[in-house]
Amino acid sequence: MSEKVCVVSGVGPGTGAALTRRFVAGDYRVAMLARNAERLAKLETDIAGAKAYPCDVSDPRQIDTAAAAIERELGSPAVVIHNAVGGAFGSFLEIDPAVLNQNFQTNAMGLLHLARRFVPGMITRGAGALIATGNTSALRGRASFAGFAPTKAAQRILAEAIARDAGPKGVHVAYVVIDAVIDVPWTRERFKERPDSFFIKPSAIADEIFHLAHQDKSAWSFNVEIRPFGESW
Amino acid sequence: MSEKVCVVSGVGPGTGAALTRRFVAGDYRVAMLARNAERLAKLETDIAGAKAYPCDVSDPRQIDTAAAAIERELGSPAVVIHNAVGGAFGSFLEIDPAVLNQNFQTNAMGLLHLARRFVPGMITRGAGALIATGNTSALRGRASFAGFAPTKAAQRILAEAIARDAGPKGVHVAYVVIDAVIDVPWTRERFKERPDSFFIKPSAIADEIFHLAHQDKSAWSFNVEIRPFGESW
Amino acid sequence: MSEKVCVVSGVGPGTGAALTRRFVAGDYRVAMLARNAERLAKLETDIAGAKAYPCDVSDPRQIDTAAAAIERELGSPAVVIHNAVGGAFGSFLEIDPAVLNQNFQTNAMGLLHLARRFVPGMITRGAGALIATGNTSALRGRASFAGFAPTKAAQRILAEAIARDAGPKGVHVAYVVIDAVIDVPWTRERFKERPDSFFIKPSAIADEIFHLAHQDKSAWSFNVEIRPFGESW
Amino acid sequence: MSEKVCVVSGVGPGTGAALTRRFVAGDYRVAMLARNAERLAKLETDIAGAKAYPCDVSDPRQIDTAAAAIERELGSPAVVIHNAVGGAFGSFLEIDPAVLNQNFQTNAMGLLHLARRFVPGMITRGAGALIATGNTSALRGRASFAGFAPTKAAQRILAEAIARDAGPKGVHVAYVVIDAVIDVPWTRERFKERPDSFFIKPSAIADEIFHLAHQDKSAWSFNVEIRPFGESW
Repeated sequence: MSEKVCVVSGVGPGTGAALTRRFVAGDYRVAMLARNAERLAKLETDIAGAKAYPCDVSDPRQIDTAAAAIERELGSPAVVIHNAVGGAFGSFLEIDPAVLNQNFQTNAMGLLHLARRFVPGMITRGAGALIATGNTSALRGRASFAGFAPTKAAQRILAEAIARDAGPKGVHVAYVVIDAVIDVPWTRERFKERPDSFFIKPSAIADEIFHLAHQDKSAWSFNVEIRPFGESW
Repeated sequence: MSEKVCVVSGVGPGTGAALTRRFVAGDYRVAMLARNAERLAKLETDIAGAKAYPCDVSDPRQIDTAAAAIERELGSPAVVIHNAVGGAFGSFLEIDPAVLNQNFQTNAMGLLHLARRFVPGMITRGAGALIATGNTSALRGRASFAGFAPTKAAQRILAEAIARDAGPKGVHVAYVVIDAVIDVPWTRERFKERPDSFFIKPSAIADEIFHLAHQDKSAWSFNVEIRPFGESW
Repeated sequence: MSEKVCVVSGVGPGTGAALTRRFVAGDYRVAMLARNAERLAKLETDIAGAKAYPCDVSDPRQIDTAAAAIERELGSPAVVIHNAVGGAFGSFLEIDPAVLNQNFQTNAMGLLHLARRFVPGMITRGAGALIATGNTSALRGRASFAGFAPTKAAQRILAEAIARDAGPKGVHVAYVVIDAVIDVPWTRERFKERPDSFFIKPSAIADEIFHLAHQDKSAWSFNVEIRPFGESW
Repeated sequence: MSEKVCVVSGVGPGTGAALTRRFVAGDYRVAMLARNAERLAKLETDIAGAKAYPCDVSDPRQIDTAAAAIERELGSPAVVIHNAVGGAFGSFLEIDPAVLNQNFQTNAMGLLHLARRFVPGMITRGAGALIATGNTSALRGRASFAGFAPTKAAQRILAEAIARDAGPKGVHVAYVVIDAVIDVPWTRERFKERPDSFFIKPSAIADEIFHLAHQDKSAWSFNVEIRPFGESW
């Protein structure tokens, strides 16, 4: 089996599905990770070349189980994308503190678990990519993102620490700041009055990440930012 | 009782003790928080005007208990300094993942718990300061700080989210990046060959934080960086 | 004539020539700008599809003259890349102050002149890209780059101001931080002992910039950083 | 004569006058630099301990002349503050390109000239401070600040390059980002409807800079940011 393998966490109807389709189109077998087994099963039916591995990435044992199955059924992944995300809205007084902790488990600890499980194999092969999707909360703490932004900041800096270690060993680690509202049904509903140009397309995000995963070894990006042309920043 | 009250977490022989002495010298009663009750008791004996409140800041119930005692015995704090810190050394593959999580509890969740317990009173009074001590790991993920840097980045961004909420309500929140090795016995031992100028003095850190806590309301700093004159950066 | 047009400033044997070849390969006619007419003429002979327009970009009248010729002979450019650069080495006391000023003329004023001459046409067409090549000096002032880094910082912030104005009008402005030594004969001579992996390949830079110039409108990057896999940062 | 000497450039009725008063209050003789000789003469009459040296800081010969007079009449400065600033408003298409260049001469070249003239003496004495006042334009290019922001970015990075060279030699270089509208008559007129809390007080800026110039050598700040408590950022 000569196809390359890509693992995507947090596969739902938006960015995760778009990443799956993009890597399948680029001749990858894609292992889809998410907690929602039912939704994953449906996507498996929809996308030939993609396979569902229900899994909570904040639990290293579940990652181990999923990883063993992926390696047995598809092979060792060349690309791992940590797209799963736990979010929250509210100021430091409004949020339940447990929410900040839970988001840290998914966003930061999940990245650590995935990296520890998959990157050693990439280092052995001297090739591979680990990419995390983030947003401007990784760089800036808005008042209403007290339960979320700290965990994305942690995630970005963890990715940086992994990049500095694994990069010289041939493994490309990158962090993508998506500075926009992603075009999915529920955001269209919430921002009804906005024009198309307000949204970033999941397929465009996926194109950028596919490009990123295949950059020439002499010209890798770590920090990547993408936003719609009309976005003010 | 007209003296102002300052709470300092993570009081050991270094920065915490220096902060305590500085605020006592500035006519504050200082409540010292730390897990090590014995060490705190000794400092209480040494520093007139300081009182020990053994407490693990990662546990909100312990903070509640300590806070109630502080308010009863000293009064509501005008200044709270989160100086407690959990550290670790090692790459993402070398560390025990539990260490990253534990450091998050002390560094980030501890800040959230302290803020939730003390800042509402400051908002009511329209005055007060919440200051966290950090270091360059808050801004940069070195390979060997995979178990630590993400938690300081989270802490800084959480402080920023609190600052944006509490600032306009009269509460000054700031984050101090100490870009240096602090001059304490164990660092002197570890960096034996280094000259005095290599180290940042705990008393100088304390002077800066005292200044910060008393800036004119029209000219507050959030991000503060301090380093010895000879530090390359 | 249906081919698109690309203007590249600062075309010499390194990044400029690689950009020229990459855009020619991507079906562009390329207008090469540089002060050295002789070297340009040779490249024109070497690269079918590229045309030489000797020009000092720090002089708006020379840009006007070249631009008029380009538009007459090739058409209005869809992509303009400001790659010309004036450099210097030395501390603030070692440099001739005139050098800082001269580099500002080429690096920052040159970008402004190019933008003023070419971007209005792109805005009218609602499409186009203006990309500047930079390096880490745009973000950081090392002691020995006192005559250079300030001009790259100015250039990056000018690009940002242009991006915020022209972006919503359909023109993609981006800034590429090349965090590496570029692989050209004179750097190979200077860093003789370094392995291949130390250098960034001009062709890889060109690939990234070509990609950047063709990103989906819903997912544009402004800040772009690229470095070899083995680079420590 | 045991008093210390401070040089302030760009002394007008706002920050410059406040700096002058603050350093005079702190037992400095203050040399005031500005192009407007008449206004300077008036301030000299108003502030005992301050002396007028009309001078355009973008011209190194005028700086030399003023410096020679200052050293003869007051002594070598312990503190130099580059507060002179050339500004502009408008997008990259709206501004006259000459304005960007002129602002560069005052903001960046002026800093270089002052540093080259005064810092060598400080290095010889192993003590002194060079401080530049800036604003958020040094960090961010808003569309309407195309003729200004690039020059403040250049200024900040130049200050950083000087800091890295002169710091280890005992000279403290710092850059102050004033993230607010300064409270002076013309801004009060322009932002009539704003409350007091909207503005940063020149005297508060001056207090911060005085503090900065006297930080303990083991705990220097380079980047300093100050903003009113109610400022959103």
